[in-house]
This record gives sequence, C-alpha cells and structure tokens, in this order.
Amino acid sequence: MAGRSADYLVTGDWSKKAYKEAQRYGRARLVASTEAEGFTRFPAVAEMDLDPDAAYLHVCTNETIRGVETFDEAALPTAVPLVADMSSHILSRPMDVSRYGLIYAGAQKNIGPAGVCLVIVREDLLGKASEHTPTLLDYAVQAANGSMLNTPPTFAIYMAGLVFKWLLGKGGLAAMAALNAEKAQRLYDAVDGSGGFYRNPVAPANRSRMNVPFTLADGGLDEAFIAEAKTRGIVQIKGHKTVGGMRASIYNAMPLDGVQALVEFMADFQKMHG
Amino acid sequence: MAGRSADYLVTGDWSKKAYKEAQRYGRARLVASTEAEGFTRFPAVAEMDLDPDAAYLHVCTNETIRGVETFDEAALPTAVPLVADMSSHILSRPMDVSRYGLIYAGAQKNIGPAGVCLVIVREDLLGKASEHTPTLLDYAVQAANGSMLNTPPTFAIYMAGLVFKWLLGKGGLAAMAALNAEKAQRLYDAVDGSGGFYRNPVAPANRSRMNVPFTLADGGLDEAFIAEAKTRGIVQIKGHKTVGGMRASIYNAMPLDGVQALVEFMADFQKMHG
Repeated sequence: MAGRSADYLVTGDWSKKAYKEAQRYGRARLVASTEAEGFTRFPAVAEMDLDPDAAYLHVCTNETIRGVETFDEAALPTAVPLVADMSSHILSRPMDVSRYGLIYAGAQKNIGPAGVCLVIVREDLLGKASEHTPTLLDYAVQAANGSMLNTPPTFAIYMAGLVFKWLLGKGGLAAMAALNAEKAQRLYDAVDGSGGFYRNPVAPANRSRMNVPFTLADGGLDEAFIAEAKTRGIVQIKGHKTVGGMRASIYNAMPLDGVQALVEFMADFQKMHG
Repeated sequence: MAGRSADYLVTGDWSKKAYKEAQRYGRARLVASTEAEGFTRFPAVAEMDLDPDAAYLHVCTNETIRGVETFDEAALPTAVPLVADMSSHILSRPMDVSRYGLIYAGAQKNIGPAGVCLVIVREDLLGKASEHTPTLLDYAVQAANGSMLNTPPTFAIYMAGLVFKWLLGKGGLAAMAALNAEKAQRLYDAVDGSGGFYRNPVAPANRSRMNVPFTLADGGLDEAFIAEAKTRGIVQIKGHKTVGGMRASIYNAMPLDGVQALVEFMADFQKMHG
C-alpha cells in the first residue's frame, strides 16, 4: 500500500518481531507498547496512538511467550483493516472473523503439524502485495491458484482436516471455549492460591487461556520443579528461553486431566519445598 | 550481491519460473534457453552466454515436467557460484556437492513429505541476502539459528530422517543410482521399442531417470490409457497439465516391480489398441 504507513501494537515477543520485520519493508508506526511493563497486559484503545490513514493495524491476539491474550474482540479498533496473528489461540474459542481484514496462524498450536500456515484474507485486500513480496507469499496469487501454486504441504493439510473433524466431534469451538476456560481457571487458581509460592504477573483480564507462564518465588527450585514434574509425566514445562520460569501450554489437545495432574503436582511440590 | 547480475539457464518450466522470479529482484541474464526446441535437452557449456562477473549461475538439474536431466556434473560451469534446483532428483544418485555454491530441493520427491526444503549453502555465500529477503528466508539467519529460527516443520523433518535411514539401509546413493538407471532404462526401452506408438522427445543423453514423460501417437487414446492403467493399479500417470500426454514419475520410492508393471501394461495396451 504505497505511500501509507502501517500501525503496530506491541504486546509481546511475537508482535514485537512483526513490528521489527515490517520496518524493513515500509513505514511502521508503533501505536502502543507494553514492553516497559514487561508485557503483562493488552492495552485499551484509548492508549493507542492510532493513525486513521494507516494501511492496517497489526496485533497479536495471544502472545505465547508471555501468556497475554485479548478477549474483547469488540474493543479492537477496526477503522482500518485489522491484521491479527492468531497463531497460538486460533480455534480455542469462536472468533468474529468478519472483524478482521487478515488473520494468520501457524498450524502448530491448535491446527495441525508445524509447516503450514492458515491465512484468511478479506477479498478486497487481495492484490496489494509489495513489489518485493515473493510470488509464493502473494496471497492474491495463492487465492487465484486455490492455495496450490506449487505443491502445498499435503500431509500437514490432511492432518489439519482430521483436527477440524475432531473439533466438530467435540462440540466445535463453543465446547472448546468452555473447556479451555475451565482448564485455564484451574491453573491460575493454583498459582494465585499458592500464597506467592507461584506467580503469574499478567493482568487477570488478559491472562491467556492457552499459555500459562508462572515463576517460582525461589528460582533456585526451578530445576527441581522440572525434574520432579518429569517423574509425574509432566514434560515441556520449562518457560521459553527468553523469559525463564515455567510455562504450561494448554492448547486444545491438552485434556482437563492433564491440567489437573499439573495442579496436583504443583500443590505437592509446594508442600515438599514450601 | 549489489551491482552484479545473475545468470540463468532455462531448460524447462522450473528454471523458467526461477528466471522470471529473479527478474523481480535484480538483473537476471539468460545464458541459454531450449524453450524454442520444446525443452528437450540440456545445452552444452559452449552454447551458454556466460558472464564471468555474474553473482551466480542458476540451473535446474532435473526438470520434472519435461523430463530433462543433466548427468555430466563435471561439465557444469563453476567459474561463478553454481546454484542448483535439485528438487526432483536429489538423492537419486551421488552428487558432487563441492561443485555447487548452493543447492536447494523441495522435499516432496525423494526426501519426505511436502512442506520442507533442503538447502545446502557454501559458507562464504552466507550473508549476501537482498535487503528485501524475508528474515525467515535469509540463510545466514537460519544457519545462525540451527534452521530453527521459529518452529520448523518438525514432522516433515522427522520423516526425512526416516527416509535417510531407509536409503542407507538400501545401500545408499550408489545403490539407488544403479536401481534408478535400471528403472529408467526399462521404461525408455518400452517407449523406443514401440515403433512410434509411444514417444519421448528428449535427447537420449538428457533423459531424466526420475520423470519419464511420453505421449501416445494417437492422443485420442489418452483417456483410455489412463482408465485402463487404473484397472491395473497404475495411477497418477497423466502428464502435467501444461504439457499433456503421460508422465511416469519413478522417484526412489518406486520399486522396479512398479516400473515393470507399467512396461507390461504399455505393451498390452499397444496390442489392444495399436
């Protein structure tokens, strides 16, 4: 979109990366950043320095690493096309697709195997690719070719189809939303009820239902926590390398029993080491 | 590589696409094209208008659609870095990797599931990406991050690893080369021995051992050929939509018995309809 700049909201590591990459291709404006506060909340519209002439506004609606999610879709600004990275919470609950100009999501959280990306583009936004966009990444070209300009990642797409059927069998996104809310609530309750033994710094209204990062007040216990969790069959609990601590990723594939097992282990670990 | 142009050799549909895409990013020079001859051979070096100052020379060493392969690696020019698209014949026989500046190959032929691309880059060529190259496609960045800047296509990589072990168990690339030569020979013999009922237009020295396209002298029999082949368990025999006719893709995964079944069917079909 020649001559216009694009607006970026920075609420965590992924939206920050997107903002940085955008600056390589054109003028990217920062509408707000919560980095100074440690990426612990999703800002209100009133805090955003929005450009009414922006080509689009880019947001990440769930920040995987910090566990920051926005739940108030109706509050997201739509004066300009809204572009959303939904990689880590798409299909976790119903979304109002009509509010977005473009949605993109890597498959590897709730869709299927890593190696395929789902993109939903409003038709009137097709055909505006930069002259530097590789042909394979030009959505207008992909749309004109049924997403099969060259060989697509066939197995990953097949697996995604199976996941979609599995979701429908489970009752669809409304049922997943209820289950995911319950899973997250149990985990945050365990953190908040630990008297400070476990901590999560995210504002309650923006606590992610997919990614629950937490720290131990005594970081010296991190290694013991990870090792003992493993003996109970709880793995991949270590926080992202950039932030440390723990992170429970409780995507659609994680059953309530898995969360319950973690909650019980957290209580037992606190009794032993608290 | 600012200020320098890149040389492109066009020997089929894929190298032509590469040449076209390159023109979007810089000056691309055509060193030779066999398009006027219908893409039926790989040109000799003497026919190439090579630029000694080119940033690189791009070639496609096996053209899937037309079935044109070059077997004489020693004859490929290496005065400038040689960049080769080996997508459709990598791992079909030993290659002298040291002759190339960069090799790239989509996985979906001989490596594993579609959705991952193998790239081998000479170390001194890293760090020369265009300013417009997306960070995820910058090989210097990928190399610095162990090809895991973001989540890589894990399942496809795992499957590729299984394929590599399978190849080693079969005797490695030397054994595959012998098997692939035998498979291709049987098929080309069937075509050439049909008295013109079947035809392949490619120069014998450049006939692909992976992709054997052939036409029926009477194109009106195409549909019958495809339908009857199917009753014998022979599928996916229809030629690429851009060229018509038939195409037998006999990648590493196709056993000699599969080729023999096709050869016998071709003889039977000719007896019935010839």
